[in-house]
Amino acid sequence: MPRQMLLNAFSMNCIAHQSMGLWRHPRDRSRDYTSAKHWQDLARTLERGLFDGIFLADVSGVYDVYRGSPDAALRAATQIPANDPFSIIPSMSAVTEHLGFGVTGSIPYEPPYSFARRISTLDHLTDGRIAWNVVTGYLDSAARGVGEIAQTSHDTRYDIAAEYMEVVYKLWEGSWEDGAVLYDKEAGVFADPAMIHKITHEGEYFKLNAIHLCEPSPQRSPVIFQAGSSPKGQAFAATHAECMFIGATEHEPTAALVSSLREQAVGMGRRAEDLKIFAMMSVVVDETDTAALAKFEDFKSYGLLEGSLALASGWRGVDLSQFDLDEAPGNVRGNAIQGSGTSSRRPTVRQLGNALTVGGGANVIVGSPITVADELQAWMEATDIDGFNLAYTVLPECYEEFVDMVVPELQARGIYKTAYQAGTMRRKLFGEGDRLPSSHPADAFRPS
Amino acid sequence: MPRQMLLNAFSMNCIAHQSMGLWRHPRDRSRDYTSAKHWQDLARTLERGLFDGIFLADVSGVYDVYRGSPDAALRAATQIPANDPFSIIPSMSAVTEHLGFGVTGSIPYEPPYSFARRISTLDHLTDGRIAWNVVTGYLDSAARGVGEIAQTSHDTRYDIAAEYMEVVYKLWEGSWEDGAVLYDKEAGVFADPAMIHKITHEGEYFKLNAIHLCEPSPQRSPVIFQAGSSPKGQAFAATHAECMFIGATEHEPTAALVSSLREQAVGMGRRAEDLKIFAMMSVVVDETDTAALAKFEDFKSYGLLEGSLALASGWRGVDLSQFDLDEAPGNVRGNAIQGSGTSSRRPTVRQLGNALTVGGGANVIVGSPITVADELQAWMEATDIDGFNLAYTVLPECYEEFVDMVVPELQARGIYKTAYQAGTMRRKLFGEGDRLPSSHPADAFRPS
Repeated sequence: MPRQMLLNAFSMNCIAHQSMGLWRHPRDRSRDYTSAKHWQDLARTLERGLFDGIFLADVSGVYDVYRGSPDAALRAATQIPANDPFSIIPSMSAVTEHLGFGVTGSIPYEPPYSFARRISTLDHLTDGRIAWNVVTGYLDSAARGVGEIAQTSHDTRYDIAAEYMEVVYKLWEGSWEDGAVLYDKEAGVFADPAMIHKITHEGEYFKLNAIHLCEPSPQRSPVIFQAGSSPKGQAFAATHAECMFIGATEHEPTAALVSSLREQAVGMGRRAEDLKIFAMMSVVVDETDTAALAKFEDFKSYGLLEGSLALASGWRGVDLSQFDLDEAPGNVRGNAIQGSGTSSRRPTVRQLGNALTVGGGANVIVGSPITVADELQAWMEATDIDGFNLAYTVLPECYEEFVDMVVPELQARGIYKTAYQAGTMRRKLFGEGDRLPSSHPADAFRPS
Repeated sequence: MPRQMLLNAFSMNCIAHQSMGLWRHPRDRSRDYTSAKHWQDLARTLERGLFDGIFLADVSGVYDVYRGSPDAALRAATQIPANDPFSIIPSMSAVTEHLGFGVTGSIPYEPPYSFARRISTLDHLTDGRIAWNVVTGYLDSAARGVGEIAQTSHDTRYDIAAEYMEVVYKLWEGSWEDGAVLYDKEAGVFADPAMIHKITHEGEYFKLNAIHLCEPSPQRSPVIFQAGSSPKGQAFAATHAECMFIGATEHEPTAALVSSLREQAVGMGRRAEDLKIFAMMSVVVDETDTAALAKFEDFKSYGLLEGSLALASGWRGVDLSQFDLDEAPGNVRGNAIQGSGTSSRRPTVRQLGNALTVGGGANVIVGSPITVADELQAWMEATDIDGFNLAYTVLPECYEEFVDMVVPELQARGIYKTAYQAGTMRRKLFGEGDRLPSSHPADAFRPS
């Protein structure tokens, strides 16, 4: 059987996630993000299309690098408003049975003790369908929201993150042994205290002396996602991540990156296949290539360049308003949000901005179901990725069309499942157990 | 029209909330607390009975004062496991239209910036049905969970809480003006930056320099609940609370407390009726008084004294294992969780424990629907309370029986609504607007 393509919808509890201005499109419904029904309808569509998950990005700050002000972002709704991603998961899980839920949790904004509880609770409520995208924090404006002048330096952030991971693994994997819960009504014993361990941690950044507040959830540790692009970020991902997001604009550099990431995981004592790699992609599909191209042109006409430049400036930490629109700035660096950028092009400011009006600077595949399937398949074969993180254009139409038009074509080619596997998100993704494998570093924190 | 009785179900995302051991009862289903369906079924029952809200208590620690160990609590499931209360609200709101959701949020465990976002998101998702029970933290074990040796001193905690309230009011009330959101597709302007204000706060405990991440939700600030019993706690409640929980074991001291609380609110420039006061109560109802008494005896036979003493020791900060079971300890102080205790009795350790096996030490009303209605009505008339916070016994049976047997009796007497009023939780409770009234201190943080 050929490798089966994995698919996540890439979304955010906001209006304009990766396509700046498409909320203006007459058919777009992203304005309904405050409503539970909006998310439930989307979740049902994705489950109908056998998507592996919906992946919820998050920022805890506003894009205010462009012109040194949040005004452009506010006018264009560039990832602001940005509502809490955790709260919409139980709305969606209530109406689905298999869809996984990836949630971005930024390490600086919640202590590990209560964060571990929040994740365990969601893993219980969803019957083991939770993944966590580990973000180490990146917007200065978010740091100011919690009273700091600017974010912690890049390398220190990864040190803090590594210690944070240790603490949450200890809570998830090491506090309650399997079998600790007896629920013995006769004897009046709910749990055996001898099998529940206090976690003692005295580190550089975190201190803890407590048992985990939750009994073991189906997966214990959530599926771990990461999108680090720097050397430190890649090393962190190779150590911890089960799934990784990457940017991908050309085959060759993407293939090289994927190969390097898998090698790094193997270097950590893990298996190459322990890492599922998702490339960010955007799709505009219609019955024919011509119709799809017309649709793409229509979408682009709604773009908001200023909103895109606010996003691009925030991602790069560089105020792009200082350059001429047709200038190609020299210091464009990798994109922390979207994973490891792999482009060898050097775009102008206008190109940078325009790319973010449809698909967030991801590769945009435009065409008929056959064209789209051809391109997705070519990406898989040329780069050894496992699947895609599909950024939306016009919402929810783009996912409905993908499900109705592209999914059947992928299934006909035998490269996409025709039914969900039973069980937790981890079991569905890896075909093995519900828990982290023994090759994962969290194994060190399990009771011996 | 006589005063209409307000009703909350008092619950917690755990197994044993206020009745230690009743999870052993053959008909009890509290073990299903990890399942979304359990909460949805409960929410549907409460909405069928026109309950104003379900109130979710929370502790972020384990009861380990008794014998200096969490063992007794773990054996009896005494408020442990204790899952996150926020996560079950969207599950319940998805299947209800009117029921309010009170959630306990402990100030030490999340920065105001992200907490304000979480609440605003829930207020959006529920169409304005969110209340927040402000807790200043109280278990030492919870403090150790976030790396502190013990909780901050009582008075300092209220100072921190007062500053925290200022910050979240600024975010909820002062950041986005009404009308800031234009959603002008034609002009490509989602929001008017001139109407969105950066919140600058430089206090003793919190610093902030950020706009609120959410556009205004239906209520902006959630309905504020509080249960402070100390002089500082009462002053805090008189200043901030719209609803208050109190303990209530006898009419006279309860009436005196209610009168004092209303006077304090008036002293703060608010109206006496701006404060809705809920007395904690537990009800065991059956067709006849005799049958109800038999049911009560049956319930008591499942109690777990050790689990109750773990709870009582934690509440009081005193290890009750040091006393003989039939001794009456001299230093029994008010109960921080249940609001202002009003009992003049001095119970033995055994009595303290037994009281927590059914109804959490609240007054337990046992009888036919007529007897129960008589007693509830008498409480309202004698004490000037507004309603009750009903602690559960056998779950969900006790709420189903209350809805089926007691609610019709209350309605027949004209003291309980026969339909929900439309609108937000605040509008339902106070019959006025969706937002905090201008007499509330949050008004100071609105744009002038």
